[in-house]
Amino acid sequence: VPLAEKALIAQVRRLATSSRKSPQAAGRVIIRGIGDDAAVLRVGPDRDSLVTTDFTLEGIHFRRDWHSPESVGHRCLTRGLSDIAAMGGQPLAIFLSLALPRDLPQSWVNRFMTSLTKLAGKHGATLAGGDTSQSPDRILADIIVLGTVPKNRAILRSGAKPGDRIYVTGELGGSAAVIARLRAHPKKKLDPRVYPRHFFPEPRLELGGILREKNLVSAMIDTSDGLSTDLAHICEESRVGAEIDASKIPCARIGKTAREVDLELALHGGEDYELLFTAAKGKPVPKRIAGVTITEIGHITGPDGIFLRNPNGQTSKLYLQGWEHFRK
Amino acid sequence: VPLAEKALIAQVRRLATSSRKSPQAAGRVIIRGIGDDAAVLRVGPDRDSLVTTDFTLEGIHFRRDWHSPESVGHRCLTRGLSDIAAMGGQPLAIFLSLALPRDLPQSWVNRFMTSLTKLAGKHGATLAGGDTSQSPDRILADIIVLGTVPKNRAILRSGAKPGDRIYVTGELGGSAAVIARLRAHPKKKLDPRVYPRHFFPEPRLELGGILREKNLVSAMIDTSDGLSTDLAHICEESRVGAEIDASKIPCARIGKTAREVDLELALHGGEDYELLFTAAKGKPVPKRIAGVTITEIGHITGPDGIFLRNPNGQTSKLYLQGWEHFRK
Repeated sequence: VPLAEKALIAQVRRLATSSRKSPQAAGRVIIRGIGDDAAVLRVGPDRDSLVTTDFTLEGIHFRRDWHSPESVGHRCLTRGLSDIAAMGGQPLAIFLSLALPRDLPQSWVNRFMTSLTKLAGKHGATLAGGDTSQSPDRILADIIVLGTVPKNRAILRSGAKPGDRIYVTGELGGSAAVIARLRAHPKKKLDPRVYPRHFFPEPRLELGGILREKNLVSAMIDTSDGLSTDLAHICEESRVGAEIDASKIPCARIGKTAREVDLELALHGGEDYELLFTAAKGKPVPKRIAGVTITEIGHITGPDGIFLRNPNGQTSKLYLQGWEHFRK
Repeated sequence: VPLAEKALIAQVRRLATSSRKSPQAAGRVIIRGIGDDAAVLRVGPDRDSLVTTDFTLEGIHFRRDWHSPESVGHRCLTRGLSDIAAMGGQPLAIFLSLALPRDLPQSWVNRFMTSLTKLAGKHGATLAGGDTSQSPDRILADIIVLGTVPKNRAILRSGAKPGDRIYVTGELGGSAAVIARLRAHPKKKLDPRVYPRHFFPEPRLELGGILREKNLVSAMIDTSDGLSTDLAHICEESRVGAEIDASKIPCARIGKTAREVDLELALHGGEDYELLFTAAKGKPVPKRIAGVTITEIGHITGPDGIFLRNPNGQTSKLYLQGWEHFRK
């Protein structure tokens, strides 16, 4: 039996050796990474710390027959990095708790870790610690990202005000559409390169940082649960309502034929990892930042609920459809 | 079907409402707790941050028929708090990723959370965030603790030097002995009050903080994996060896008869959450700190391995026996 756990520890140590070299950037430093009871980090005196944690569970968030180890590692970390992007922050250190079944091939772990640390490095984050355990059966991962943001400048969900305009980055529904296809044709392999937003979603860190620097945004969240649910989170925390325009929702165009996904998927499908934000009316929000399209889709209202303006001009209450990932 | 997850979110929010009141202590402040993409924390400019993460998995770290929800919640958090204690730090904020099976009774979650937050409050830590997910079958928890320590004062595993004396707090083997009893008599219920070190282990935070303040310690770790394995961690990180004296190991006295556990359990049994540390020869290490006994058990040597001095005066190589928790 390949004891994946021990090999994993060795590999994590090897991959994270750089963490002992104390990389410094923007007043952030890792004093001690993997190899002690806890990591020791120093955040500059002019910065606040951000902490986020997200599970990635086999059978809930991915399936081994649908997702390559590289895709799982990438998506696992994107979940955490996207939360940091939604605060306008920069990632500093990542921590990975990983529980693996005894019979998991070592190559799966290698490919998972290589993909995860590659994405971390791309965004200047260091794997600084974690925990390894044996799992009774499924692969279980919990990703923790520690980020930083200039003091008092974190972008919260609670700052939206009536009259603010609502914007979303990129396209919506592309990830959920891939899951729908996988469900409909479970045996068919999809080429990850043709569906990158599902298999290798890029967290909008650069874009989020620019929005924060330019002081354009009143509230922000990432679309991990789906537009309807995530907009409801902003409305709840800001104690406001919203109206969005169906004709303005940027429905994703996916696959080789660039077919537009159904509005329902764009409204309710999760795991697109785009940014949903509000800005005061009149703020000069660019149409494109860091190569990503930004679309105005509606406006914030008083606390009367969330409404969808249909193409016929009528509005109807937008019902939340909880995004439930997928299961075997 | 009771949807434990939604109720959990509501409960976590209720229990953590205090996190919005921004408790301040020793220059540490929680700007924003639960309710955003990430928690926002401010660590004083004269302090370093500590981060630790630990899985608690049903069937690996606990069994629902052996451990009450209160015990599971307490032990889950102790795993993280004990790591902070071993760095000489104070906990600031905790984050809990929790995946629950659909059919888990709400009362289980309530009792788990109440016990966990009670322990957090006792040590001045606030539940500041986390993630909830559905689990395919087992209860899965990942606890993340963010702590702080005065700048450059974290006690690492890597500071032990030849000649240093080796000390351990409290007693060893008590937790493993309880697991041995549970294994031998799976149907028999053990009274948690009679076996507190297994069911409700107290993290040695006060003791660790005093050791750091008094500048007594050269290296420290907590005994979560067992004395032999944890001493090996110190030796590996410090590039030294060690010799411990069998007759000096404080074997736990457990149960109503206060029977002493076997030396093997004290040497290799895990999850006692005591502190194992080294101090230069001649340092005035007290025999008791914060109500906990401290015992000198050996000394650090050159990098020649770890040896055990037996009662007959002979020494033998101490073989590591990995602590593998227990399984169904």
